[in-house]
Amino acid sequence: MTENIPHVVIIGGGFGGLEVAKGLRGERCKITLIDRTNHHLFQPLLYQVAMAAISSVEIAYPIRAILRKQENATVLMAEVMSIDVERKAVILEDREVNYDYLVIAAGSQSSYFGHKEWEQHAIGLKSLRDAFRIRRAVLLSFEAAERLSTSKDVQSFLTFVIIGGGPTGVELAGSLAELSRRVLMDDFRNIDSESAKIILLEGAPRILPTMSERVSELATSDLKKLGVEVMTKTMVTDITKDGVQIGDKFIPSVTKMWCAGVSPSPLAKTLNGVKLDKGGRIIVQPDLSIENYPKVFAVGDIVSFIQDEKPVPGVAPVALQMGQSVASSIRNSLDGKPTNNFRYIDRGSLATIGRSAAVASFGKHAFNGFFAWLAWVFIHIASLIGFRNRMVVMFDWMWSYVTYQRGARLITDHGIEQDVDLKMDACEEENRTLAESKKAGV
Amino acid sequence: MTENIPHVVIIGGGFGGLEVAKGLRGERCKITLIDRTNHHLFQPLLYQVAMAAISSVEIAYPIRAILRKQENATVLMAEVMSIDVERKAVILEDREVNYDYLVIAAGSQSSYFGHKEWEQHAIGLKSLRDAFRIRRAVLLSFEAAERLSTSKDVQSFLTFVIIGGGPTGVELAGSLAELSRRVLMDDFRNIDSESAKIILLEGAPRILPTMSERVSELATSDLKKLGVEVMTKTMVTDITKDGVQIGDKFIPSVTKMWCAGVSPSPLAKTLNGVKLDKGGRIIVQPDLSIENYPKVFAVGDIVSFIQDEKPVPGVAPVALQMGQSVASSIRNSLDGKPTNNFRYIDRGSLATIGRSAAVASFGKHAFNGFFAWLAWVFIHIASLIGFRNRMVVMFDWMWSYVTYQRGARLITDHGIEQDVDLKMDACEEENRTLAESKKAGV
Repeated sequence: MTENIPHVVIIGGGFGGLEVAKGLRGERCKITLIDRTNHHLFQPLLYQVAMAAISSVEIAYPIRAILRKQENATVLMAEVMSIDVERKAVILEDREVNYDYLVIAAGSQSSYFGHKEWEQHAIGLKSLRDAFRIRRAVLLSFEAAERLSTSKDVQSFLTFVIIGGGPTGVELAGSLAELSRRVLMDDFRNIDSESAKIILLEGAPRILPTMSERVSELATSDLKKLGVEVMTKTMVTDITKDGVQIGDKFIPSVTKMWCAGVSPSPLAKTLNGVKLDKGGRIIVQPDLSIENYPKVFAVGDIVSFIQDEKPVPGVAPVALQMGQSVASSIRNSLDGKPTNNFRYIDRGSLATIGRSAAVASFGKHAFNGFFAWLAWVFIHIASLIGFRNRMVVMFDWMWSYVTYQRGARLITDHGIEQDVDLKMDACEEENRTLAESKKAGV
Repeated sequence: MTENIPHVVIIGGGFGGLEVAKGLRGERCKITLIDRTNHHLFQPLLYQVAMAAISSVEIAYPIRAILRKQENATVLMAEVMSIDVERKAVILEDREVNYDYLVIAAGSQSSYFGHKEWEQHAIGLKSLRDAFRIRRAVLLSFEAAERLSTSKDVQSFLTFVIIGGGPTGVELAGSLAELSRRVLMDDFRNIDSESAKIILLEGAPRILPTMSERVSELATSDLKKLGVEVMTKTMVTDITKDGVQIGDKFIPSVTKMWCAGVSPSPLAKTLNGVKLDKGGRIIVQPDLSIENYPKVFAVGDIVSFIQDEKPVPGVAPVALQMGQSVASSIRNSLDGKPTNNFRYIDRGSLATIGRSAAVASFGKHAFNGFFAWLAWVFIHIASLIGFRNRMVVMFDWMWSYVTYQRGARLITDHGIEQDVDLKMDACEEENRTLAESKKAGV
């Protein structure tokens, strides 16, 4: 590699970053894509991994494998500590990587509105690790309820609270309802898995607040049919290991899930002298570059971009389109041509609520039911990377559609003690004490 | 459930325990199957999960789902602490379960020949957790070598030592050789994944010592073709985070795998007054019951059973056949008939060494190559539980056969700091020091 080939560094292998890398295939530049994981994640289906419907490998794909044939691209699995735009350097734990062009596509993380202490009790859903944690907590809660069915706290194992009624919260609630009502139906002997309470909390007056009112209504009625309790205009005031506080009402619940908000990657804050909006997102120029640094771009969830007086949403299609735009701008720039401005084209939105139920909105049209679900299935499958993944996911869905079975119901130890472990320990302690006092009594 | 229905307690949901439960379907008894995990594991394919060839859900299946339609069976996810045969009680963490019949099918665990301190450096392969740990260590070693390719210790990331040349060690070595030579071939830019050294160590004069000499020869030559270094008559004297000591020779290696030995579940030791062999296995009567306790049986790896003056091996077919025999004995006993004696029927053995290479021995016949591989594929697929799993595994194998791709190459954090993490930290520290001394020098 000679020195005069421009070096494009991309931080993040999500939808945006990967699109930039692929868009520069065959160009006269050297690309380094840095990600702290080794895989690209199809985040829109992450909730299905959490709900044991599909396996992690079906929505995650090694970034190296995606770019293996693209010879101008190198993948580096590393954590970026900060960015020095003055010195054109990306700082890793042990060294620096210099760039000519930089694309910041570091995404977002779960945000707890300043309540950092809620994080350990209400599990977010941003990474495979999060999905495994939720899966383990949910499945273990049913196991604990079966084993400790005589405990007075058994209902708190079977009460699941989902905080946040956006697409992820709605999809999680629908999928969890199906898991408890259909999939696990015959699995237990001491408890009735259908008696599980699933509560979806939303602060706004309606769920799916970014979609149309009609879609919200459809989704609410679909969720209710599945037995989900939907509570809107409801603000959570505290979350502890034992449950969720809403004003003066307390809901005892061992497993809580957080889908209420995200904040941009903390990397944004390390950009000295670069303007951020009040949420901490990078304010970009019309071509997605950063003021005064025309060769530094940002794409995806980390970006604050106002279009038609509204911020564009933090969803996969936006990240994809931004990535394509930046790739094209860099190609132009390499050829000495001007960059192009970004404009998001909204092709509609979809959310699924379980077996053959979904809501869709395309422009002014909103619909639900089987056809929305079918549209959802095909749109998602078409976007999955790799023929194999598409085939296997399709097969898995058909399989679970026909049989109501979910293959991925494995509890594997992810090394963290969760609220469900603490509660199980407490109930076991109670049983031991009870047994001993019985013995003493005899 | 009335009090006079006999209660059969089964400890362990592996091949043996599950076979007993299924064999008592429809009988007039109440069955409780206790396992500390929620899934049955198809152990013969565990090495494929470790080598990222298949996903965990394809070889693990929820025990509840297997027994969901069997109404006389209850599944309890719990850890058994000890067994009190006098009081007919199985002691759990928080309470006791009383039995009329007991089947001990608790299996075995990795054994380090009294070197407990080796356990953290040489990863065993008995559970899904082990398989994930090996997968993470192997994939992360390649990532570390790519990122730290200028480090003087880079070769130790790319040296993989497998200790133990039994079927698991042989299959692991073959599969790892394919991973490095074929699957990862085009993935890296700074290192050559094909230069990875894979060393298989065996203490006996030949690998696969329990199979015929001809099979050993075939396997050795197949492994050598794949680039595996096979060292027999080699005793490991120490294992540290940096490598493996063999007498006065030291092999620097970050990732070490242990397939050299297993010992029975420590539960055997809690059986007061029950005879164990010197390996700690339960010595059983001809009908697999325990002396003086005709209603307590043991099956699988935890059993010492001598047939034709040789102990029967600790393999899946033995556990399966023992389970069938005990189920039949319990059925007889419930009907007031005598129990039946166990006899193992050896239907041959197989080991696979990668893409269309395998060794097989059926009676006096030994063969290798594509047909042995095909036999292996069909025998394994036929034994997998669930139609879905069979289809998906078949599809995965076809897929990786045609494309040399492996879908399950995901590095997920399993919460334990491994040798590869320590080595990466050390190399990064070295880089930082180097960079600083350079700065100071300028």
